[in-house]
Amino acid sequence: MVTRWKLTIEYDGRPYVGWQRQAHGRSVQAEIESAIEKFSGETPRLHAAGRTDAGVHALGQVAHFDLERPTDGKTVREALNAYLRPQPTAILAAEPAPPGFHARLTARGRHYRYCVLNRPARVALDIGRVWHVPYALDIAAMRAGAAHLVGKHDFTSFRAAECQAKSPIKTLDRLDIVADGANLAFEVSARSFLHHQVRNIVGTLILVGRGKWGPEQVATALAARDRGAAGPTAPPDGLYLVGVDYA
Amino acid sequence: MVTRWKLTIEYDGRPYVGWQRQAHGRSVQAEIESAIEKFSGETPRLHAAGRTDAGVHALGQVAHFDLERPTDGKTVREALNAYLRPQPTAILAAEPAPPGFHARLTARGRHYRYCVLNRPARVALDIGRVWHVPYALDIAAMRAGAAHLVGKHDFTSFRAAECQAKSPIKTLDRLDIVADGANLAFEVSARSFLHHQVRNIVGTLILVGRGKWGPEQVATALAARDRGAAGPTAPPDGLYLVGVDYA
Repeated sequence: MVTRWKLTIEYDGRPYVGWQRQAHGRSVQAEIESAIEKFSGETPRLHAAGRTDAGVHALGQVAHFDLERPTDGKTVREALNAYLRPQPTAILAAEPAPPGFHARLTARGRHYRYCVLNRPARVALDIGRVWHVPYALDIAAMRAGAAHLVGKHDFTSFRAAECQAKSPIKTLDRLDIVADGANLAFEVSARSFLHHQVRNIVGTLILVGRGKWGPEQVATALAARDRGAAGPTAPPDGLYLVGVDYA
Repeated sequence: MVTRWKLTIEYDGRPYVGWQRQAHGRSVQAEIESAIEKFSGETPRLHAAGRTDAGVHALGQVAHFDLERPTDGKTVREALNAYLRPQPTAILAAEPAPPGFHARLTARGRHYRYCVLNRPARVALDIGRVWHVPYALDIAAMRAGAAHLVGKHDFTSFRAAECQAKSPIKTLDRLDIVADGANLAFEVSARSFLHHQVRNIVGTLILVGRGKWGPEQVATALAARDRGAAGPTAPPDGLYLVGVDYA
């Protein structure tokens, strides 16, 4: 009798080539699959809600795998964490998944946060965990620009060339900018995202914040359906997968 | 004409043996003194408000040094930051100090934060930046215990053996516990502190939080004036020098 396990996972993206197992380099997937094998002797495939890129972090990535060995959630969590040590990846929760659950296919919503440190001085404590923007930013203008992106649109202008999604049409449910002193957080939610969509949105809105673009140019860039019409891709350092919703 | 410069400094304590220059190992003081020399050709001594221990972080350490070369604050800040790169130390501000200023001797108040991550799962993103306490904690009991420490007391029970302060009598102006989900922050303020005082206070209050001690035992430990009567020293990982006040 196979049990499907749902994992909630935190990781620091800095040392990894990304979520996905690759021929060379450390991946979060490979680290956790290795811990599962050491714990259970089984070699199930681990499926994530979102395959984060190199350097992107997670506060609440979700993944699932199937295990024949009978066990319980606390044992799975503690055993995997013991084998993951000292990697910067932790299993926050392990629980039997409900019937029909699939971390990627049944996800109803994904929440990302993009963190910017907006001050003249370089980053010290949060190197690799924020994007340092040393220029003065007009937050109100950025919010006005962001408003053009909320809702259902063709996001071709904000999509990486290597994106494998069938359609460029996505519905952005939330794009809020939370300012706390020098710290800016872009809170972005959707059922699913295109590759680099959040980083391309942030890179574009920073152009607006710096005054290089007017807020209405975001609407123009969106309507162009051309990646070259939008702003640059923000670095991975500031991006966090915060959580994933299921029914 | 010598100018005294006041620096506000952020650093990640992980790679350092502490603030103070030592025969072996990297220190924040030596890194910044080296940057000053590269920038100015002069070799002034850098004096800090508080000599943080190995692994202790700063969001707003303050230090001063004297420079003969005429310059301006922006130039000092940007030059030192350029020479400090890629060290995890940043000069947030550089400004001419007011007459009579001394980073340590004229400080009127010091603010520390101690961060605890209170959840069963190990730390991933904040390795080295929080103390992981996996046990359930009674916050109300910890606050009741903390209340015994606020005010003017003989803090011998919370003082490291190697402490060089002339008197163990200190006035704790603030000892608040801010809880936000799994994140606990102990906010501690005083004109000055004994060596390890904050870490010994936190180590003791965690005993109260775990139910190993009643809140009133904190008062008993304080009255004992004996380091052996209080709890263990919390690790440096969670400690941040947040800021320093001057007249």
